[in-house]
Amino acid sequence: MVKVVIIGSGNVAQHLIAAFQNAQIQGSEIELVQVYSRQTASVSHLLDLEQITNDLDTLAEADLYIISVSDDAIASISSQLPFKNRLVVHTSGSVSLNALDEDNRKGVFYPLQTFTKNKPVDFKTIPICLESENATDFQLLDKVAKSISEKVFAINSDQRKALHVAAVFVNNFTNHLYQIAQEICQEHQVPFEILKPLIAETANKIMVLSPEEAQTGPAKRNDTETIAAHEAFLSQANHLDIYKTLTQSIQENGKKL
Amino acid sequence: MVKVVIIGSGNVAQHLIAAFQNAQIQGSEIELVQVYSRQTASVSHLLDLEQITNDLDTLAEADLYIISVSDDAIASISSQLPFKNRLVVHTSGSVSLNALDEDNRKGVFYPLQTFTKNKPVDFKTIPICLESENATDFQLLDKVAKSISEKVFAINSDQRKALHVAAVFVNNFTNHLYQIAQEICQEHQVPFEILKPLIAETANKIMVLSPEEAQTGPAKRNDTETIAAHEAFLSQANHLDIYKTLTQSIQENGKKL
Repeated sequence: MVKVVIIGSGNVAQHLIAAFQNAQIQGSEIELVQVYSRQTASVSHLLDLEQITNDLDTLAEADLYIISVSDDAIASISSQLPFKNRLVVHTSGSVSLNALDEDNRKGVFYPLQTFTKNKPVDFKTIPICLESENATDFQLLDKVAKSISEKVFAINSDQRKALHVAAVFVNNFTNHLYQIAQEICQEHQVPFEILKPLIAETANKIMVLSPEEAQTGPAKRNDTETIAAHEAFLSQANHLDIYKTLTQSIQENGKKL
Repeated sequence: MVKVVIIGSGNVAQHLIAAFQNAQIQGSEIELVQVYSRQTASVSHLLDLEQITNDLDTLAEADLYIISVSDDAIASISSQLPFKNRLVVHTSGSVSLNALDEDNRKGVFYPLQTFTKNKPVDFKTIPICLESENATDFQLLDKVAKSISEKVFAINSDQRKALHVAAVFVNNFTNHLYQIAQEICQEHQVPFEILKPLIAETANKIMVLSPEEAQTGPAKRNDTETIAAHEAFLSQANHLDIYKTLTQSIQENGKKL
């Protein structure tokens, strides 16, 4: 059995705990032996009490320590570990491998997904991006990752940075566009519900078409009359700013092709 | 039976034809009696030849004529109809009801969805936004719409304009964000595939959470260090422009709450 300890109890940590437990039930060779949480209570609904510690000095012996805490706590937690030369990874998209303390072997175990508290996800479909300093450690990370996901990738730090920025576009920024749409609906007394099938199909399309093939709309068609009407219709400055910036970018793209 | 004629053979028209045929098989009281298409061949895979005409003067008698052509052809087609005082609607989100010719009773039958050629959609889930000049016509439109969809709404012209602009945000602009993410991936040799589960879950989340509740990321957290790192990382001017504009809008939103 490969022994794993998770350090942290936030959103990502909790989803990882559930994923490893699930895999164990299905006979995986990975054993989640312990979880560290400052507040024992935050994971006591997921684990037996003897599997939880709130003291780094009592961390169990394991083949892999997964630090899943907020970005700015990674360096500090990793420097407090009471052992040396073990494999220690973090789960962040934006923190460098070198943020981890030199005393241990470093790696990254980054599940690229947006996790919502209490909303279960099918971990099997979540890409896990791995990085390590040597091939032996990579093999171990690969084995652990494949026990919970069907999509495991070797991703170096530069590639991970690119993925993290790209994720901001497709997740944070896309969600903000949903919010603007909701604000426009509210202003004109239209239920936001009406847009939900369109939101679902827009994401669906990209599973089978490239973004270029899927692009439609007035900016793409260079329909200046509709664009002018939309700009006149938008009453909030930030809505108009975003409309103009994205319209211009789509139009410039059209010229490049 | 309520008799319907569809005028047009583009993407929306073809999906409407399939939806009415489907409903008819399932015993609906709506009968698609004829389709007008300039090129008979463009719909001959969907209908018997005797149901197709390419001559407006041979249009069949019907209770409802649905003009589903490009926005700028609606006025012209509607003025060429060889009859008076019948119910004629268009399917556009951005064209006014008054673009239709005065000779007939006017209405709008706007299915709010993005239609892809050869990609079937479940019409039952597509919102149809209706508008008419009087209550009797509305009842007929309502009956026809409900034969193909479970989501039928009375939407006036101002509300429809709002929906159309909002749809540009959640569809056209969101798709453009997907494209930028793909460009960033390509530049750094990362497969765009890795982002697809995140794209799907971002749309999924909005089915159960409000956009405000679903918002995460460096802009929302006011994580200026990560924002600066992302801005330094982006090499294309339009990517940086969009990053800055959307980040600022998310940050200003945070201040409003």
